[in-house]
Amino acid sequence: MSLHFTHDTLGQRVMLGAGRAAEHLRAEVERLGAARLMVISSERGVEQAREVAGLIDVAVHHTDVAMHVPVEVAERARDVARRHDIDLMVAVGGGSVIGLAKAVALTSGIPSIAVPTTYAGSEATNVWGLTENERKTTGTDDRVLPVTVIYDSHLTLSLPVEMSVASGLNGLAHCVDSLWAPRADPINAALATEGVRALAEGLPQIVRDPQGSDGRDGRDLALYGAYLSAVSFASAGSGLHHKLCHILGGTFNLPHAQTHAVVLPHVLAFNAPYAPAAERRLAAAFGAPSAVEGLAHLRELLDAPRSLAALGFTAEGIPTVVEQALAAVPAGNPHPVTRENLTELLRGALGAGQV
Amino acid sequence: MSLHFTHDTLGQRVMLGAGRAAEHLRAEVERLGAARLMVISSERGVEQAREVAGLIDVAVHHTDVAMHVPVEVAERARDVARRHDIDLMVAVGGGSVIGLAKAVALTSGIPSIAVPTTYAGSEATNVWGLTENERKTTGTDDRVLPVTVIYDSHLTLSLPVEMSVASGLNGLAHCVDSLWAPRADPINAALATEGVRALAEGLPQIVRDPQGSDGRDGRDLALYGAYLSAVSFASAGSGLHHKLCHILGGTFNLPHAQTHAVVLPHVLAFNAPYAPAAERRLAAAFGAPSAVEGLAHLRELLDAPRSLAALGFTAEGIPTVVEQALAAVPAGNPHPVTRENLTELLRGALGAGQV
Repeated sequence: MSLHFTHDTLGQRVMLGAGRAAEHLRAEVERLGAARLMVISSERGVEQAREVAGLIDVAVHHTDVAMHVPVEVAERARDVARRHDIDLMVAVGGGSVIGLAKAVALTSGIPSIAVPTTYAGSEATNVWGLTENERKTTGTDDRVLPVTVIYDSHLTLSLPVEMSVASGLNGLAHCVDSLWAPRADPINAALATEGVRALAEGLPQIVRDPQGSDGRDGRDLALYGAYLSAVSFASAGSGLHHKLCHILGGTFNLPHAQTHAVVLPHVLAFNAPYAPAAERRLAAAFGAPSAVEGLAHLRELLDAPRSLAALGFTAEGIPTVVEQALAAVPAGNPHPVTRENLTELLRGALGAGQV
Repeated sequence: MSLHFTHDTLGQRVMLGAGRAAEHLRAEVERLGAARLMVISSERGVEQAREVAGLIDVAVHHTDVAMHVPVEVAERARDVARRHDIDLMVAVGGGSVIGLAKAVALTSGIPSIAVPTTYAGSEATNVWGLTENERKTTGTDDRVLPVTVIYDSHLTLSLPVEMSVASGLNGLAHCVDSLWAPRADPINAALATEGVRALAEGLPQIVRDPQGSDGRDGRDLALYGAYLSAVSFASAGSGLHHKLCHILGGTFNLPHAQTHAVVLPHVLAFNAPYAPAAERRLAAAFGAPSAVEGLAHLRELLDAPRSLAALGFTAEGIPTVVEQALAAVPAGNPHPVTRENLTELLRGALGAGQV
């Protein structure tokens, strides 16, 4: 077998340290020589943003933020940046906040620093999104990639344990799926399995001790793992797992993170026998005899959801999902998909005794 | 233990494929929209460079190249680039050729594509070097990083097996050392252990079948591993191993690659008990019960050199190396170094029955 691939590595500085966000931000603002700063956060997150920006001079705090970055919200932020002659943005928050900074960067070229407070992962990608008349447009542009990401697990302490675990399992699914996604390559695989390693270690620690020193360590690891999941997923694209979850979410309105958590072990069991190299990488990352056993053990520790039925899905929906999936699954999926084996996979995910 | 680090990822496209260099180069020239190309190679490598550039229009082939990039050689290349209004350089060759393109990029900002024909690794770093009056100046600047690296193992088929193995072991040493180097971090560690995995698989294949289809696969893996070794070493810096080898090479004029090959197992055995996480990563990458056993097995397969004595080093030199090393070894080395334990390490590397 001959090795061949094209891999795009995005250039970015990543700083990670519990309780160090303000100090890291000051160092970066000095390094970049920025003088006119715009700090972006949600209204609810403004206190936290002020703390993070406690050691730097801020020209303007901007809190006019909305989900999915509506075009008019982006336009207002661009105006503010222009009026204040901004030369650096600092986005403190989740996907909407970081997405707004990206929308400003897209048209202005103003660089940004991302200080994520969730596991959304947008900070590690060059993907932007804008919503106009309820239609979302997305694209990629290297100008929107934050020059620096500052991770500080203290900023995630208010995330409930359940949401941390659900987001973490979503990240884990990104990592696993990137091993057989359309642009899978060994560099993505190395970063993705490192993400699995970090999440498999970090998430159970969060459950054991959500707030203590031990718990913060788990949150450091989970942030680190979520970062790698975003890097590898953005590079490798959507595999079988994400195609299925996208259909289940879009057509049947099932909850995003839980759907991922239920479906992942079934896709892993489906593909693993046909992807021995990926299987070995995952087994090693889980520290388990096999990838399937490693994931099963982690899911037990996290008490992860086990059934699509419990999320409101029924056997009647399976043929619809199968039809849509057959058209969407990447050609290179290790286990060739058929109507029959996808139906069986989904019956398994529906839940024992539900079919 | 709390996780904290700062990691700089350099943005770059990497393309790898046996026999695909010309095709990949054409695709990149089109993607970048370049029109005025300067192809740089050595005089000896000009035929190969012409083949690589066979599908693109070239404004000028430049072959005025010398080791360590003398300033006057750089000045002449800059003049040529100016005169021909060059908007993209293509460097086909080893460290001197890629280094010359970097020297031009440093002052002109002209981007470059690197097509490495050795395992030198310069293509993956933002480090430049220039020599003036026999003094080498080095520095880092993101402008000198090639925008794209194109690896094609067919271009390395003329590298003798012995040199491939020696260079590969040098790359392996970069990977291992980066696990405890001054800027060691988990991202470097993940890429470095992926490099170990590729080199441990690829180098024995090169020895088994240097030219055949199987051998080319080994060379693909070795190129890939050498790339990762450069990435992780450039990011993590020099650890104990490189400090020792630098002294042995600089003060005692021992051959570079062979010195690395001899010293590495001794540094690994020295540090591994004090670096359990690194040890586990390496053991998994070697597919061996322990890192030390994995490296020993690989060295047997490769018939790697075993003794500094055979390279001309004698026991009388040990105190000099120890004195210099004590001043140079990074403070964070897992096993704290003393005069005594460094002396013992070097006695081991000198060779059994030589002390």
